[in-house]
Amino acid sequence: MSNRIAHAGLAAKRMTAEQAAALIGPGMAVGMSGFTGAGYPKAIPLALAHRITAAHDRGEPFALRILTGASTAPELDGALARAGGIDFRLPYQSDPDLRARINQGEIEYMDIHLGHVAQYTWFGFLGKLDVAVVEVSAILPDGQLVPSTSVGNNKTWLDLADKVIIEVNQRQPRGLEGMHDIYYGTALPPQRVPIPLTQPGDRIGEPYLRCDPDKVIAVVETDAPDRLGAFAPPDETSRRIADHLVEFFRHEIRAGRLHEKLLPLQSGVGNVANAVLAGLREAGFRGLTAFTEVIQDGMLELIGDGTIEVASASSFALSPGGVDDFVRNIDRYREKIVLRPQEISNHAELIRRLGVIGMNGMVEADLYGNVNSTHVAGTSIINGIGGSGDFARNGFLSCFLTPSTAKNGAISAIVPMVSHVDHTEHDVAVIVTEQGLADLRGLSPKQRARKVIENCAHPDYRPMLEDYFDRACRHSKGKHTPHLLGEALSWHERYLETGTMRV
Amino acid sequence: MSNRIAHAGLAAKRMTAEQAAALIGPGMAVGMSGFTGAGYPKAIPLALAHRITAAHDRGEPFALRILTGASTAPELDGALARAGGIDFRLPYQSDPDLRARINQGEIEYMDIHLGHVAQYTWFGFLGKLDVAVVEVSAILPDGQLVPSTSVGNNKTWLDLADKVIIEVNQRQPRGLEGMHDIYYGTALPPQRVPIPLTQPGDRIGEPYLRCDPDKVIAVVETDAPDRLGAFAPPDETSRRIADHLVEFFRHEIRAGRLHEKLLPLQSGVGNVANAVLAGLREAGFRGLTAFTEVIQDGMLELIGDGTIEVASASSFALSPGGVDDFVRNIDRYREKIVLRPQEISNHAELIRRLGVIGMNGMVEADLYGNVNSTHVAGTSIINGIGGSGDFARNGFLSCFLTPSTAKNGAISAIVPMVSHVDHTEHDVAVIVTEQGLADLRGLSPKQRARKVIENCAHPDYRPMLEDYFDRACRHSKGKHTPHLLGEALSWHERYLETGTMRV
Repeated sequence: MSNRIAHAGLAAKRMTAEQAAALIGPGMAVGMSGFTGAGYPKAIPLALAHRITAAHDRGEPFALRILTGASTAPELDGALARAGGIDFRLPYQSDPDLRARINQGEIEYMDIHLGHVAQYTWFGFLGKLDVAVVEVSAILPDGQLVPSTSVGNNKTWLDLADKVIIEVNQRQPRGLEGMHDIYYGTALPPQRVPIPLTQPGDRIGEPYLRCDPDKVIAVVETDAPDRLGAFAPPDETSRRIADHLVEFFRHEIRAGRLHEKLLPLQSGVGNVANAVLAGLREAGFRGLTAFTEVIQDGMLELIGDGTIEVASASSFALSPGGVDDFVRNIDRYREKIVLRPQEISNHAELIRRLGVIGMNGMVEADLYGNVNSTHVAGTSIINGIGGSGDFARNGFLSCFLTPSTAKNGAISAIVPMVSHVDHTEHDVAVIVTEQGLADLRGLSPKQRARKVIENCAHPDYRPMLEDYFDRACRHSKGKHTPHLLGEALSWHERYLETGTMRV
Repeated sequence: MSNRIAHAGLAAKRMTAEQAAALIGPGMAVGMSGFTGAGYPKAIPLALAHRITAAHDRGEPFALRILTGASTAPELDGALARAGGIDFRLPYQSDPDLRARINQGEIEYMDIHLGHVAQYTWFGFLGKLDVAVVEVSAILPDGQLVPSTSVGNNKTWLDLADKVIIEVNQRQPRGLEGMHDIYYGTALPPQRVPIPLTQPGDRIGEPYLRCDPDKVIAVVETDAPDRLGAFAPPDETSRRIADHLVEFFRHEIRAGRLHEKLLPLQSGVGNVANAVLAGLREAGFRGLTAFTEVIQDGMLELIGDGTIEVASASSFALSPGGVDDFVRNIDRYREKIVLRPQEISNHAELIRRLGVIGMNGMVEADLYGNVNSTHVAGTSIINGIGGSGDFARNGFLSCFLTPSTAKNGAISAIVPMVSHVDHTEHDVAVIVTEQGLADLRGLSPKQRARKVIENCAHPDYRPMLEDYFDRACRHSKGKHTPHLLGEALSWHERYLETGTMRV
C-alpha cells in the first residue's frame, strides 16, 4: 500500500485514523475535501465522530466548524452531524441527518456560492482555518499530492490551514494522475491578473497539489469507495423537460443565436440533467463541450461517445456502473476531462468569457421569473445554492428546470411569489417544466408572467395562477410587478397547513 | 459651430431635430445615449415626442422600444413617456413621468443589470436595433466620434443599429477628447479572450467611437447642458452612515484584510454616497482608486485633492458647480479619469479581478440579508437595479447603505422579509444604516438576523423585529431561515393600508 506514499518524510507520519482524529480539537475550523460525494476523507471524520461522542459522553463540549468543497457523504456530514459535532457548516450539503439538524436550528449553516468559497477564505472573511483534511490518490516523491476524484477547495485548504492531515485512498484509480489542472496563478487583489483560459479544455496549471510537508501532521491510508449514486434512465417527465430544452437550442441555432456546437454546457446533478444530456445526444448534437462542476454518468457517456469533446469540472458523481466504465477507460477519459479547483470551475471571469449555458434544477419559480433553489416553504433548507448562481449570473444563458409539480401534485413549482429567492428576476432567462419552456429574455415582469403561466404551469394550477395574476393586475398598488401582498405567500401557507397548495 | 463636425460627408447630413425625428417610425427599437442624466440626446427625443403626439392626435398608433445606457432626463424619458411614445423601456430610469406610467401598467419596463445590456444585445436576446441616437461632443475628420459626458452603451448601439443619428452638442467641453477609453476587444463567445485590464486607470482601447458613416442618416447640432443635479452637503444621517463604513474600513485595515489604499471603490449616486466619499477624505485616506459607474461631485472633489488618484467610470452626474470645476480643470481631470463603455465599467471579469468594494444604496433589507433595491412594497418600481448587482455579486465586498427609516419614520428599512429581492442573502456582505453596521460575512441566516436587528434597525422598530424573529424561531416550520409566512410581508401591507409600518 505504501507505494502510494513515495515521500519518506510523509510516510513516516503514517498513523491510524483514530490517532489522526485525536489531533483535531474542540472549536477548530476544519477544511475537508469532498464535492458531490467524491474525494471526501473516508476514515478521519468517522473517527472524529467517535471522539466527539466520547467527549460528549464525558460531558465535554466538542463541536467543529466544517468547510468542504460541496456535499460529502454519510461518513462525513452524516456521522459528524449525528454526533452533534458540527456547530457551523458551509458551503453546500445534502446529507439527511445534517439537513435535519440545520432545519431544527441546531447547526448554523451558511449557503454560499461555490465559486466564492476559496476567495472569501483567502480574504479572511470566513475566519482562520486550523486543519485541512484532504483525500488524495497518491503522494509523489517530492511531496506533491495527486488529487482524488474531486478537487473542490483542496488547494485553498492546503495553502491556508495551519496543519494538514492527508488521507491516501488506494481505492482511487492511480490513473487519475494527470487529469487535474491546479491553477496557482490566483492572487489577492490588487495583484490579480487575467486567468489565461479561453477554451473549456485548456490546461493552465499543474497536475498536482502543492503541500508543505512540514505542515502535515498525519497521513492516514484508506481503501474505500466514494459515495456512489444511483443512475436510473430518465423518466417521462425528465424526458419531456429535456425535449423542450433541446428544441429551444435548435430554435436558437436556426435564429443564428447559437452555433451548432452550442457553447460550453454547465449541467446540474440529477435525473433531469441526465435527461437533457441524453436528449442532446439523441438529437444528434456532436462536438459539444462542458464547463461544469460535476461529471455524472450522463455526461461520462457523452464524453465516451464523442457527443462531448472535452469536459471541465471539479468532481465526479458516478454510479457503480459509471465508476467501472471510468476506471476501465481512464486513459481515454484523461484526454477529455480536466478536473479543476472549484474556484476555477465556477469562476465569474471564465463563465462570462466562455459564455457558459447554465442548466440547473430548482424548487420553484414565480410569475416574474424569480427562482428558489434552496428552501421548502421559505424556511427549510434542502441542499444549497451550489454553483447555480455562479453560472446563472455570469453565463450566456441561465436555464432553470423542474417538473411542474411535486409531491404527487400537492406542490406547484410555479407560484405567485417564491418563498425564498436565490436567483432574481434579473438572472433567469429560461424556465422549463415538462409542460413547456418560457423564454423570458427581453421581457418585462408582466410579459414574463403570461409566458410562465401559459408555458410552464401544470394545468391543475394554471387557472389559479391566472386568477391571481388577473386580480393582481387589477388591485396591485404598483402595476410594474403586480402582487397581492396578503396572498402572495398563501400557497405555501396552505401547503404547510393542509398538505397541498390546491384550494 | 460646424468646427465640431470635421467630416465632410457627415457635415452634409446635418438637418434639424424635426427632420431627424421624422426618420424614426412607429414600432422601431431605438438605442439612445445617456447615463445618469449625462450625454443623452437633447433635441431629437423632444422632436420625436411632438411627432408622436401629432400622430396620436390623428388617431395613429406610435410607440417605440427605448434602450439607453441608464437614466436620462425629462427631455428624453419624460417627454416620450408623457407623449405615450414608449411601449418598452430598458435598462434603468429615474424620470417621474416615465416611472408613473410604468407603475400604472402602461409601459413595459425590463430592469436588467447595466453590465449585461451590451452583451445581451450582441447575443440577440433583446431584439433588433433599428436606430441609434447618440450624443457626441465632436466628429473628427475621419468620421470617428468624440464621445460626450457618458459612454454607456453607445459603442454597442453604433455597432449594431441599422441606422445612426448623431447629435453633436457643442455645449459639451471640447476637452473631453482623450478622456474616453473605448475597448474594441469584446467578442461573442467562443471567441472571447481575457480583457487586458489590471488596474482601474489602465487604458486598453481607443479614445473615440467608431461609426460607419454610411449608416448615419442624420446629424443634428445642439447646444444644451446635461441634466444637472443638486449637490447638498451631507446631512447628519448620511454622515453617520459614512462614519460607520469608514470605521469598518479602518477595522479591516487593522485586521490585515484591507490595504491602507483600500481597493477600487464603486459608489452609487446620491447624498449617502457623497457622504461616504467625504468621510474617507476626512479620515485621511489618500491614494485611493475608483472603478465605478458614475462620477458625481463628491468623487470629483476627491480626485481634485488627490484623495482618489484615478477613477474609472462610464458617466458623470454633476451639479452646476461640479460642471464649472470640471470644465475649468478638465486638462488635469483628463489625467485621472477614464470613461468607459458600461459593458467594461460593470464587467464581471474586471470587478472580480480588481476586487472592487461596492457601496450602493437600497430600499430595504431583511433579517437574513436579502436586499430590495428597486421596489416599493413589492410592486412599484422606483428606478432599477442599475449596476448594483454587477458589483455586489462579483466584487470584493458588497455594502448596502440606507437610513434606517423613511417617510418620517413610517417605513423601516429593516423588515422581516423584503417585498422584492434584487440581491440575495448570498450576495450581501455589509449593511449600514445611521444606527450602525452589520458585518454579515461568514454568518448563517440566524446569526445575520441578530446582527441586523441589533446594529441596523431603528430603535422604534427593533422590538417589533425582535418579536418577529423570536416567534419565527419558535414557530417556523424550518429553522434554517425562520419565518412566519402569514406575517412576513405584513409590514408592507400595513404600510399600504395605514400609511405606516408601525402597529
